[in-house]
Amino acid sequence: MADLTCDVAVIGAGTAGISAEHNARKHGARTLLIDPEFAGTTCATVGCMPSKLLIAAGRAAHGARKAGVFGIGTGPVSVDGRAVMKRVREERDRFVAGTRKGFDRLPEGTCIRARARFTSATTLELDDGRSVSAKAVVIATGSAPMVPGPYRALGDLTLTNETVFELDDLPQSLAVIGAGVIGLELAQAMARLGVRVAVFDRAERLAQMRCERVHDALKDAMAQEMALHLGSDPQPSEEGGKVRIDWDGQSEFFDRVLVATGRPPNLKGLNLEATGLKLNDKGMPEVSEATMQCGEAPIFMAGDANAMHPVLHEASDEGAIAGRNAVAYPAVVRSDRRVPLSLTFTEPPLVSIGQGPDESAKIGTADYSSQGRARVDDENTGVARIYAAAPRGRLIGADLFCPGADHMGHLLALAIQQGLTAEELLSMPFYHPTLEEGLRGALKEICRAVPLHLSGDQDPGSPPGG
Amino acid sequence: MADLTCDVAVIGAGTAGISAEHNARKHGARTLLIDPEFAGTTCATVGCMPSKLLIAAGRAAHGARKAGVFGIGTGPVSVDGRAVMKRVREERDRFVAGTRKGFDRLPEGTCIRARARFTSATTLELDDGRSVSAKAVVIATGSAPMVPGPYRALGDLTLTNETVFELDDLPQSLAVIGAGVIGLELAQAMARLGVRVAVFDRAERLAQMRCERVHDALKDAMAQEMALHLGSDPQPSEEGGKVRIDWDGQSEFFDRVLVATGRPPNLKGLNLEATGLKLNDKGMPEVSEATMQCGEAPIFMAGDANAMHPVLHEASDEGAIAGRNAVAYPAVVRSDRRVPLSLTFTEPPLVSIGQGPDESAKIGTADYSSQGRARVDDENTGVARIYAAAPRGRLIGADLFCPGADHMGHLLALAIQQGLTAEELLSMPFYHPTLEEGLRGALKEICRAVPLHLSGDQDPGSPPGG
Repeated sequence: MADLTCDVAVIGAGTAGISAEHNARKHGARTLLIDPEFAGTTCATVGCMPSKLLIAAGRAAHGARKAGVFGIGTGPVSVDGRAVMKRVREERDRFVAGTRKGFDRLPEGTCIRARARFTSATTLELDDGRSVSAKAVVIATGSAPMVPGPYRALGDLTLTNETVFELDDLPQSLAVIGAGVIGLELAQAMARLGVRVAVFDRAERLAQMRCERVHDALKDAMAQEMALHLGSDPQPSEEGGKVRIDWDGQSEFFDRVLVATGRPPNLKGLNLEATGLKLNDKGMPEVSEATMQCGEAPIFMAGDANAMHPVLHEASDEGAIAGRNAVAYPAVVRSDRRVPLSLTFTEPPLVSIGQGPDESAKIGTADYSSQGRARVDDENTGVARIYAAAPRGRLIGADLFCPGADHMGHLLALAIQQGLTAEELLSMPFYHPTLEEGLRGALKEICRAVPLHLSGDQDPGSPPGG
Repeated sequence: MADLTCDVAVIGAGTAGISAEHNARKHGARTLLIDPEFAGTTCATVGCMPSKLLIAAGRAAHGARKAGVFGIGTGPVSVDGRAVMKRVREERDRFVAGTRKGFDRLPEGTCIRARARFTSATTLELDDGRSVSAKAVVIATGSAPMVPGPYRALGDLTLTNETVFELDDLPQSLAVIGAGVIGLELAQAMARLGVRVAVFDRAERLAQMRCERVHDALKDAMAQEMALHLGSDPQPSEEGGKVRIDWDGQSEFFDRVLVATGRPPNLKGLNLEATGLKLNDKGMPEVSEATMQCGEAPIFMAGDANAMHPVLHEASDEGAIAGRNAVAYPAVVRSDRRVPLSLTFTEPPLVSIGQGPDESAKIGTADYSSQGRARVDDENTGVARIYAAAPRGRLIGADLFCPGADHMGHLLALAIQQGLTAEELLSMPFYHPTLEEGLRGALKEICRAVPLHLSGDQDPGSPPGG
């Protein structure tokens, strides 16, 4: 008999694991939450929160430098790198402490501080020697930065999105490898904090943006703040305590290099082979997006570990679905997932919602380079693209890179999730002067492109600056 | 026979009038747009746009002063009042020019530069001596600041929301009479621009806020930036070129006084008595909110002139409704109006949507004083209150005074207009870490207060800082 028995064993105490344990217990299960460290979630420790704190500092510096536009004098703007990083860590540690307090509130004996490996589909061996027997297991081991060998060889000169927040001071220069969402967020924040930044990527496309028009706006904006070397093949080396990057016959030295080439799932050491699950060439089982179940097994996989939607709200949902279905197994229940929403906290923010601009989509465009409120606040740049399906103009997706996109992304996500048409969304109040008003032009464009028309109650024109 | 004949005569070329003329013409009418000046809309010239420009300058100064929180040094922050006002006017004039260009695009002969007075329900006399005969008339004469006699007696020392934007430089001190939305917006902007500001109001309540909790948060925040003398009876006088305000046995001197005690409709000189309409003791006819019609007459009233909803998007809607119904008369069509949304551009913004917190409402509260993203950006203050109806938790209204309230107000307005329940709104994606996430606590509170429950797919907890 196993040393520990339970209904649901959850491996990994991050966002998905915490959510899975919580929901399994709520549904009546005896649970175990197994983690070697209980250090806090990726989000709080090295993800969402510290990155947004660094971005907030970058925004403050940028805003101070721009204050003259409004008639405000500041004298020279300086960045105290130590103070910047101190606030990032102090506030980050508050969020982490909040997560850790949550562990203390779990029923006694729930938290097991150990590393687990499968010995069968429903049994685990812990690295403290104990064994666990469960009716079902949730894998929520998260992800970790991938650092290719040549960068690993640079030792402390190489940073990841995990170690960058431990810097005591800001580097003077930084090479960023990878122009994905993490790379861009950190690159822009660093640039605004006075760091000389160059971004390298083998691909030509930033943040995998699917809309050409939005990509152009994003690329133009980023190129104003940092060097972009896209379609390049950077080769790193160490020289005189600096990082030397060679690419396309050029070379440049940097204080540090930040590797942001992806965060693959943490599956090493889980010994998934023992579960009997069919694994693909990356060692991944097949996971259902609707149930989080791996094949037909009493094994569920949630959060970054399944590499489907590596963002917090999805990890939280997936944990809840996995936890509930781990209790319900084998009678698992399929869940409707929320409309896909991804948000990159560049400035302006970059947002993708739902479906992309496929051939059949009716597309409405809102240009923020001359939008009234954006101009008032001297942030008039970027574009929003809204996609709809004929014949009624039902909203199906959007891509935005414009001021307020983080907020308007939520508005559009709600409209899309509710299946509203462009005309229905236009029937809500748009206050003047707001950034939201700018969307109306795009929505009206969709209305004109489908056989239905605006009701007679709406002024077909626009207010000044609307 | 009249000198000028038309189907629809529109008096006043502001937001409502422009919209009315536009929509009447779109519905086939021969139109006249009559205005003595064609100076541009209230919004563009003295309302929404210049006030937001002044607020943007105040925000820039405030942000620069706060930059140290993030580790950014600036040296002393100074305000160049002349530069501030120059940008306000230059950008304002751009918006005004946009409006004026619109007049040039109207069919020739549409714009009549004159002041009009009724001689009967469908005939007008112009101050250039010409007469107008119309099948229907739209009154869209707007509103103007009311300045009580004692303040008028102060001459140039007294400012209104119209004259304040003509200042060459900022005053060193400013008394603001009236703690309504216009008074508060300008008072806070001026305070952030280094002006010593005191606000006086006979009432105890700021901006007529209907929710006690939100009012408390608003009052606390405003009191940190300006002196608030509520429930006071200020008496102005001039002394040595300054404004002296006496109240409750105290007195204080100010460079200028800004009177923001209301903007009553511009009806003087219209000679409404000649229309045969029944007028109340303020000289106002009864106007239908659904048709904009005055009684049963071929007269319609839209925008600030009818004193119903003096905000731009309502004026624009009312103009469109009035213009269409002026064509359709006597077969006028009733329109559904949008969910009420009012937004005051204080920082954080103040928003009211739909119904207030009546006795039967289920109330959810989101406290932004410790909300994660707000804390990251060092703007953690304020509160959001969401109101719902039993038994399903259908959202019916909200009051917000918190960061991002301008944006979240739109999200909630859409949800309310669509008749969504708190649970339905919770089914949309809330990205992490955003201000929108903070609303979830309030929505969950409503879910718990009604007999329905959260679906099993959602993590009942919150992410760190969520």
